[in-house]
Amino acid sequence: MTGYDIGPWSLRWRGLSVPDLRRTESTFALSNGHIGMRGTLDEGEPRGLPGTYLNGFYEEHALPYGEAGYGYPEAGQTVVNVTDGKVIRLLVEDEPLDMRYGRALEHERELDFRTGTLRRRTVWESPTGRKVTVTSERLVSFTQRAVAAIHYVVEPEDDLQLVLQSDLLANEPIEERSGDPRVAAALDAPLVAEFRWAEGKRAVLAHRTRHSGLRLAAGMDHELEAGNGLRSHIHAEDDLVRFTAAADVPAGNALRLTKYLGYGWSTQRSVPALRAQVEAALAGARQTGWQGLLAEQKAFLDDFWEVADIEVDGDEELQQAMRFALFHILQAGARGETRAIPGKGLTGPGYDGHAFWDSEMFVLPVLTYTVPDAARDALRWRHSTVDKARDRAQVLGQHGAAFPWRSINGAECSAYWPAGTAAFHVSGGIAHAVAQYHAATGDEEFDRECGTELLVETARLWMSLGHHDKHGGFRIDGVTGPDEYSAIVDNNVYTNLIAQKNLREAAEACERNPATASALEVHPDERTAWLEAAMRMRVPFDALLGVHQQAEGFTAHAEWDFAGTDPGQYPLLLSKPYFDLYRKQVIKQADLVLAMHVRGDAFTAAEKAANFAYYEARTVRDSSLSAGTQSVLAAEVGALQLAYDYLAEAAFTDLHDLHDNVHNGLHMASLAGAWIGVVAGFGGMRDHSGLTFAPRLPPGLDRLAFRMSFQGIRFSVAITRGEATYRIVAGGPLRTAHHGEPVVVEPGAPVTLPIPEPPTPPEVHQPAHREPARRVPG
Amino acid sequence: MTGYDIGPWSLRWRGLSVPDLRRTESTFALSNGHIGMRGTLDEGEPRGLPGTYLNGFYEEHALPYGEAGYGYPEAGQTVVNVTDGKVIRLLVEDEPLDMRYGRALEHERELDFRTGTLRRRTVWESPTGRKVTVTSERLVSFTQRAVAAIHYVVEPEDDLQLVLQSDLLANEPIEERSGDPRVAAALDAPLVAEFRWAEGKRAVLAHRTRHSGLRLAAGMDHELEAGNGLRSHIHAEDDLVRFTAAADVPAGNALRLTKYLGYGWSTQRSVPALRAQVEAALAGARQTGWQGLLAEQKAFLDDFWEVADIEVDGDEELQQAMRFALFHILQAGARGETRAIPGKGLTGPGYDGHAFWDSEMFVLPVLTYTVPDAARDALRWRHSTVDKARDRAQVLGQHGAAFPWRSINGAECSAYWPAGTAAFHVSGGIAHAVAQYHAATGDEEFDRECGTELLVETARLWMSLGHHDKHGGFRIDGVTGPDEYSAIVDNNVYTNLIAQKNLREAAEACERNPATASALEVHPDERTAWLEAAMRMRVPFDALLGVHQQAEGFTAHAEWDFAGTDPGQYPLLLSKPYFDLYRKQVIKQADLVLAMHVRGDAFTAAEKAANFAYYEARTVRDSSLSAGTQSVLAAEVGALQLAYDYLAEAAFTDLHDLHDNVHNGLHMASLAGAWIGVVAGFGGMRDHSGLTFAPRLPPGLDRLAFRMSFQGIRFSVAITRGEATYRIVAGGPLRTAHHGEPVVVEPGAPVTLPIPEPPTPPEVHQPAHREPARRVPG
Repeated sequence: MTGYDIGPWSLRWRGLSVPDLRRTESTFALSNGHIGMRGTLDEGEPRGLPGTYLNGFYEEHALPYGEAGYGYPEAGQTVVNVTDGKVIRLLVEDEPLDMRYGRALEHERELDFRTGTLRRRTVWESPTGRKVTVTSERLVSFTQRAVAAIHYVVEPEDDLQLVLQSDLLANEPIEERSGDPRVAAALDAPLVAEFRWAEGKRAVLAHRTRHSGLRLAAGMDHELEAGNGLRSHIHAEDDLVRFTAAADVPAGNALRLTKYLGYGWSTQRSVPALRAQVEAALAGARQTGWQGLLAEQKAFLDDFWEVADIEVDGDEELQQAMRFALFHILQAGARGETRAIPGKGLTGPGYDGHAFWDSEMFVLPVLTYTVPDAARDALRWRHSTVDKARDRAQVLGQHGAAFPWRSINGAECSAYWPAGTAAFHVSGGIAHAVAQYHAATGDEEFDRECGTELLVETARLWMSLGHHDKHGGFRIDGVTGPDEYSAIVDNNVYTNLIAQKNLREAAEACERNPATASALEVHPDERTAWLEAAMRMRVPFDALLGVHQQAEGFTAHAEWDFAGTDPGQYPLLLSKPYFDLYRKQVIKQADLVLAMHVRGDAFTAAEKAANFAYYEARTVRDSSLSAGTQSVLAAEVGALQLAYDYLAEAAFTDLHDLHDNVHNGLHMASLAGAWIGVVAGFGGMRDHSGLTFAPRLPPGLDRLAFRMSFQGIRFSVAITRGEATYRIVAGGPLRTAHHGEPVVVEPGAPVTLPIPEPPTPPEVHQPAHREPARRVPG
Repeated sequence: MTGYDIGPWSLRWRGLSVPDLRRTESTFALSNGHIGMRGTLDEGEPRGLPGTYLNGFYEEHALPYGEAGYGYPEAGQTVVNVTDGKVIRLLVEDEPLDMRYGRALEHERELDFRTGTLRRRTVWESPTGRKVTVTSERLVSFTQRAVAAIHYVVEPEDDLQLVLQSDLLANEPIEERSGDPRVAAALDAPLVAEFRWAEGKRAVLAHRTRHSGLRLAAGMDHELEAGNGLRSHIHAEDDLVRFTAAADVPAGNALRLTKYLGYGWSTQRSVPALRAQVEAALAGARQTGWQGLLAEQKAFLDDFWEVADIEVDGDEELQQAMRFALFHILQAGARGETRAIPGKGLTGPGYDGHAFWDSEMFVLPVLTYTVPDAARDALRWRHSTVDKARDRAQVLGQHGAAFPWRSINGAECSAYWPAGTAAFHVSGGIAHAVAQYHAATGDEEFDRECGTELLVETARLWMSLGHHDKHGGFRIDGVTGPDEYSAIVDNNVYTNLIAQKNLREAAEACERNPATASALEVHPDERTAWLEAAMRMRVPFDALLGVHQQAEGFTAHAEWDFAGTDPGQYPLLLSKPYFDLYRKQVIKQADLVLAMHVRGDAFTAAEKAANFAYYEARTVRDSSLSAGTQSVLAAEVGALQLAYDYLAEAAFTDLHDLHDNVHNGLHMASLAGAWIGVVAGFGGMRDHSGLTFAPRLPPGLDRLAFRMSFQGIRFSVAITRGEATYRIVAGGPLRTAHHGEPVVVEPGAPVTLPIPEPPTPPEVHQPAHREPARRVPG
């Protein structure tokens, strides 16, 4: 039992389980990509790990090295838990509502994917026997990005004196979560008070960080409805504003509080400017009102589900998980607006709040094909950091732009370069996402203003990273691919193929945008050199085994002793040294298999089958990034049940807490991997040149359907036993292909086509103890 | 100008140069391998970097990681500047002798390679015009290893009141030398006072370290000769004992002080036990007396020079440098006695006082062929750490024993595993030194008690590090060879060849010592497996270029842009990221070239010539370990002038301060490299099976001669233009070979043989700006 009720459009948890609070605070987190709030109880305690995050708001700390080296990043960045506005405490005749005391006669919380709110309903009997019903609903607005709001209602069973305390609380003490004393020190009361103001029901607090030079303002405003004798008071300190309201509420009546929250932050703006910004946000929110905010939120989500919904007929739990995944990806990216999409979104402090390559390679495909403006904004963030990436390339002795392995503000924060800086495929992934976004939207303005520069500067990086060898092949040596159980390798297939595409896309972008190309000083012979390098790109193949090598020499390495590895020793990085992992044929996560997805055009079907079987037997999936991609290739080679197992693994990573770390936040890339498993796996969607499909229904399901957007056309693909139906939802017509046959789908004229038999899959097995759980739909 | 006077048997510096004190404190350091004292002025100030070191006495500190990993060492070790007993201050009529004040009418210091003492003579006029002559002589006894002594004489020109203060001083404040605040904290007053005692002219202080659990006692005793009215006093504090003697000394008379110092330290022993040990040492020293200590020291060195002297006729400065090198190698190793020989000996705090692989591969060959007992003791130290190395292998997922990259106590202290832990050749180097020592001495007791176990456990390491590939070759993947500008490579030739020898030597040792083999549970099929792996060891060769690959794939990597690299950017590790260095054909230090020396039996002469030329063009010598080895191969391929240039570079590394870091201590391996350049380079000495020579005289020299010991036979080889003379000094007869022809040299019957013409050298060049300085003898 996972603890959640299964339902198609919401995630609900009944009863209180204190040990589960940490993970449910993550799954119940609300965010719009700009502001994030973990799903902490209104009253603040009991709690797991409290957290309110502002995208791009971090503290800096020194990165320590036992042995330093040239070019090592000196400063780390860590997301900061900012001023908490969620807290609303209730005192019932002076007894604080605390779920650990008295009795919770009823208690449930529900995250609603259609309203975009987190609801809570608690019937509580105080230790002295007083009963109240508390209902609350919380949202972080998709439409007013600086705003969150909470509607809080208390209904007493008897005439009771009720007191509400509504706080803005800065420098909330948190259990230390870093083993490094310097990081811990940086995060211990990270906010320095700069300004406080409170009057009537309104207040603003402003703080700055000590080292990173960021400033934030948080404001709150309130609306109250109550019975007689309402008394209220507001009090401000440096790190606390408390609005207190007391009322005598007769049985059958209610005390209703609406709390509006506004946040503003900046590296540049002054305290007065930030205060003005926050007050404007609050004024706007009050003008819209609680009902108005609810209505806007619903409308926003209606539109989202129209273009993004996935229907799974025959597996209710997976149905729920798919919508949960889509909802959280939307939350992570909807209003990021030239900020990063962190690996955990804004749902927790995991990975220090950093964004990684999986933002472009996993999360952005989902957004590109559902909410393309959000994909564009995320890529605009990358573009806004291109100067930092150029500086980094220079430090590394390279041309062009080298984007960071992990970062909040665009500067490299990785303290272990073999698995960080050396993973230059990060830059190729950005180029891939740029090209994918351009192909899916035809957005010429972005192409001209941002896309071309990103493609050109990453192409330049590859040209300086690689060289033509004595046989005329173009090699990229000494880099690290996606598989983190290998590092500093030559000619990693994934990297080389993503670089190949990067070089070609850069050349095409320059042809499309000659003025931009000229501003970037791209000369015709530079374009020629890109195309020559792309043409001669080395892709190592082991002729003896008939499979590609993940990197040069990989298949000559020793096999890992899977039989002698205890199930408890996984993930291997916690029980085995990198040294031993790197030099053996053990794979943390899809690497060559990912190449066969995103550069499927570079492999024959027979190669895909042989490679998939070979690498499947050596992949341990110690990363949550892996299962979605394995699902895609399993489906392609005809291993449909296995594909379904992997799809389920990706989809349930967070709901089943498969890695026992959901308390630090959700795995955005894994959630995205579930979408990829459906759309690219069972839908067979590829976008190598044009958009194509090869749908297949997994065993046991009655129907699987998904929706997406391509060049402004919204359409759905529904897969049933033996056939698939393509239907235009808006716009059109759509030109695509079904299992290799061109199809044109006109508006109002769905096309239903038969599904050919899948190929006979190769014989496939996984390392001992690492088989995915068998998922039987139903 | 280097500042030193050139003389055949001593190193002398005239005048005072405060900025040069730091480096001369290193070159003038005295040590017996057990105790080391930097060449600080008697009066303590002015000074560069004070230092008194006890072999194996260190403090521990946490190793920080920005991103930690399984199996990373958690504790670092750093050599501690212990209780300083060198300090003798003089007050002339209340004016302290301080060379920065008044006038030094004469001042010189001289390190004498035959007496084994550091002498100083200063004629000083105080600011108020009083004149004294101070002569002092200092030794760290080779014969009484816990003892040092200073003989200090003051002769006034007028009747003067003289006061001497002789100190034992603990926790001497030193300028911070670590950028890491944790290391700095560990070394700030590292000694905790445990005991003090002073009476008459004698005193003992005992301290312990805070974290490493080591305890030390330092004691002093004094003898005084003076004119009338001698008054003395002793005073003890926790960190200071001061013996004060005052006398009125008439003109023409002298005040003479002999100070005896004794040191004891232990992880185990109590304060009373250590005190007793120190007092016994002092009693022994007083019994021997200053003249007796001088005589013992001289006799010890007479014996050393009989077996080790090198004569360079035609290059006086190199003559001096060779004896300086031999003297300091002797000082580093003479009385180490189951302690490590650190990279800097006991001459400074560089490399944190750690021992590295170059102890076995560079320093031990010198000792094996001159003072074999010292080589044996150093290998006994390695053997004493075999349990730690077994534990380390286990953590790393390997069998056998994995010796540390850097350590004081035998536990790995390297905080950067790609260039530390992954350099498994460390263990092969130990095996190499064991086999070399055994072949050179026939020491059966050591072979049985230590050598066989070291060979077996290191052979087991290779068996688990390597595997048989699909073509039957034995591969060793993912390790780092000697060249620190490459890391985590497959089939590094040096590593594989040193492993090959290791495996064969282990098999032979087990045959010689069946009981030991049986105790180590070596079964016959394990021996067979070693020999099979050795036979099939892969040695990558680039058939297109006709050269060996330093490691698999090396010759396919991009060339370094030497033309575009500024002279000021060397050493490259300070201006270029490891990432870029690792993946290109740029070599920090001899790696394949070192393999061609120590495993010269695995290469043809033509291969050596082609390889030497290829790698010479890519080797930047950013390490002081390189020149000696390049000298050896340059001589072998016939590039005699180049060989001489490299010999000079190795020999002058410290005297010319070529790396601008002699202030942190001498480069023992580079000093040893000078010996290797003479004996293995121009002497052509090889010991692949039996001892052989191929002497050649460098251009410009009249004669080059060296002495060594082999299986108890002491002999000399003298090279003149056109011929070489082999002469037995003691023992004999010696069976050897001269340029491939067997020779037997009988006692009393020197053999003179003609030297054939050297081969025509290949065309050789170095990277731009990295040519060695041309050395013209004379």
